[in-house]
Amino acid sequence: MLEEPIITLTTDFGLKDPFVGLMKGVILGINPKARIIDITHSVQRHNIYEASQVLDMSYKFFPTTTLHIVVVDPGVGSNRRPIMVATDKYYFIGPDNGVFSTIYEDAASGFMRVFHLTASHYFLPMSGSTFHGRDIFAPVAAYLSKGVGTDKFGEQIDDYHRISVPRPVKSGNSISGEIIAIDSFGNAITNIKREDITAHVSADSAERCSIAFNNIETTMVHYYAEHQGSELSAIINSFGNLELFVFQGSAADKFHIKIGDRMSVNLPDIQ
Amino acid sequence: MLEEPIITLTTDFGLKDPFVGLMKGVILGINPKARIIDITHSVQRHNIYEASQVLDMSYKFFPTTTLHIVVVDPGVGSNRRPIMVATDKYYFIGPDNGVFSTIYEDAASGFMRVFHLTASHYFLPMSGSTFHGRDIFAPVAAYLSKGVGTDKFGEQIDDYHRISVPRPVKSGNSISGEIIAIDSFGNAITNIKREDITAHVSADSAERCSIAFNNIETTMVHYYAEHQGSELSAIINSFGNLELFVFQGSAADKFHIKIGDRMSVNLPDIQ
Amino acid sequence: MLEEPIITLTTDFGLKDPFVGLMKGVILGINPKARIIDITHSVQRHNIYEASQVLDMSYKFFPTTTLHIVVVDPGVGSNRRPIMVATDKYYFIGPDNGVFSTIYEDAASGFMRVFHLTASHYFLPMSGSTFHGRDIFAPVAAYLSKGVGTDKFGEQIDDYHRISVPRPVKSGNSISGEIIAIDSFGNAITNIKREDITAHVSADSAERCSIAFNNIETTMVHYYAEHQGSELSAIINSFGNLELFVFQGSAADKFHIKIGDRMSVNLPDIQ
Repeated sequence: MLEEPIITLTTDFGLKDPFVGLMKGVILGINPKARIIDITHSVQRHNIYEASQVLDMSYKFFPTTTLHIVVVDPGVGSNRRPIMVATDKYYFIGPDNGVFSTIYEDAASGFMRVFHLTASHYFLPMSGSTFHGRDIFAPVAAYLSKGVGTDKFGEQIDDYHRISVPRPVKSGNSISGEIIAIDSFGNAITNIKREDITAHVSADSAERCSIAFNNIETTMVHYYAEHQGSELSAIINSFGNLELFVFQGSAADKFHIKIGDRMSVNLPDIQ
Repeated sequence: MLEEPIITLTTDFGLKDPFVGLMKGVILGINPKARIIDITHSVQRHNIYEASQVLDMSYKFFPTTTLHIVVVDPGVGSNRRPIMVATDKYYFIGPDNGVFSTIYEDAASGFMRVFHLTASHYFLPMSGSTFHGRDIFAPVAAYLSKGVGTDKFGEQIDDYHRISVPRPVKSGNSISGEIIAIDSFGNAITNIKREDITAHVSADSAERCSIAFNNIETTMVHYYAEHQGSELSAIINSFGNLELFVFQGSAADKFHIKIGDRMSVNLPDIQ
Repeated sequence: MLEEPIITLTTDFGLKDPFVGLMKGVILGINPKARIIDITHSVQRHNIYEASQVLDMSYKFFPTTTLHIVVVDPGVGSNRRPIMVATDKYYFIGPDNGVFSTIYEDAASGFMRVFHLTASHYFLPMSGSTFHGRDIFAPVAAYLSKGVGTDKFGEQIDDYHRISVPRPVKSGNSISGEIIAIDSFGNAITNIKREDITAHVSADSAERCSIAFNNIETTMVHYYAEHQGSELSAIINSFGNLELFVFQGSAADKFHIKIGDRMSVNLPDIQ
């Protein structure tokens, strides 16, 4: 652990209510050295898939040993389990509802352990059944950040819950994918990664791919301002994902793009 | 005081303007060791009652000696006084407009002192009359967090302002209460606490109470997912308050519930 | 540098996406001692002028040596340069698109150096061309906060970009100005400073100025509650700017005030 361990928060609580603030109070009451960083509190309510995507975009940019708490938790208080995931670099604390599915995939070839959080002496004494973010996840993360061993919080489990994460599919000269997120600029992020393209063609050829969405065809640029004007354009974004955008506009609004919409990459003919 | 004292902020400033950020600059300029935690900046503009409820929900979850600043302050610059409240565990800094009324009640049987903040050498030198959050409350909290004694900031007073906090009333077999807050999930929080019910019936019987709102009758569950479907349901929430909810929906929207609306608990007949 | 150096963030990213959170991860990965303070993330998208005004209102309230990052950056990835501005008190890191124009004016008579950030070994290794906030500005600020010298990041330049900042104009007995910002309370902030008035009349006379907006004439008060009622009123606000307001209402909504609208101050006749 760092001298001042980092704990991040990703929730669907919004910022109007005091819920996020008092989770921080609970953490600092247990570990006054913790540094708490907000990733976002604006995940769509109860949208486990969106939370998993947000976490996937974010967690690697934090220093090794960072603890990531995720509270998007429609089943709070029911028999869904509170869990902790330990990989070789990070810790994840939250509900066992699939919110860590992309983490399980990333760690597929490496070290990973998942624990069912049952050691209630690490929970908040006034623990209830509707706010595990405050009563279980915050205090467990705080104790973990103080150096309590992962095996002290409960039994290791293997039957943790996964949600399916859509993957691009290659067929002939085409890779078909889908929109997995719309950012607040209205950019539409696809599940097609740079590597999904360069696995089939050289980086040079990749630049000559055409991108199809509905009946629109467009090309890829290197930076947003390279394609000015109001047509749809595409770019490999700063997370390595193919992204549909409109320069200084909202692609999602202008072209009615929604999460789950299909699109495809047409590879150039290769000599 | 903690080595790194905690100062919380509750305001109606919103997050668009830089007002909150620069209050933090003022605090860190005086005490670089302070840790500043946002409770919320989305209190409805000038809603003193809402601010008092938010504070009431939050302050106890922070470590002892935490300093809580509240800036919901329609009378800023007029003759309303800036004050500091010191209890045996916490400090509160803000305007004397009733925003600390629930604190006065909580401290009724314990230690509490209220000070009129007049020692202007602890204020920001460029102090004006429209932004006491920056010019008075932030620097006073910062100096207090450095160990300046509470009695250095001004005279103790006893005539501080209170606003009335609605209390549930028992009549016959019924406890009548009202909605005191709607959270951003649309859950409607009442002023009836678990203890208001268990003062009259056993915990077991309490679970068999019926809850009435308008012409709707419902029952209490232990966790949200226990009552799926779109009807109104009730729960003792994680703050100990009776709360009306709809599973994965907004009770406030669906049943047109507003702050101030009346509701009641009908106690079961006791043998 | 402070033992725990302060880095502020001003962006147009909003708070829904994880972009701000992961910039903080990058900073803490390089300098775990940094304290990161949000000024705002709700600058209107791509509004360089608004960002410059927000920064102008805020930066002086932070301790000397604070590093201010600004990411409002429509030209990211194009040939616009990433820059650092060092004054005798503060550092500013962001795009060379005019966002620091008010800083250049403030520093006109003092020490100031501007550097083109080219030392890519201080950038994030996975650096792309659409997210310089994460890949260039955050890591450069973090290294600078650890004590790396300003001259290590690139060559000093003199041809940095400025945008024009509207100034009030005196003509006869009148000072004409314009609205430069609307805060989230709906107060309309003008570019006329207290000094613009007291340069021509005594402080006492200044209080007898009349303020004209469209066909409305009003006067100045000392604090908001001094002019109750729903008419337009004016005040020198806590930043020293003349401001149009409605007590407990939104002047912008009620009087249809927009950024760029003209207004004027009519000086009293002086004996």
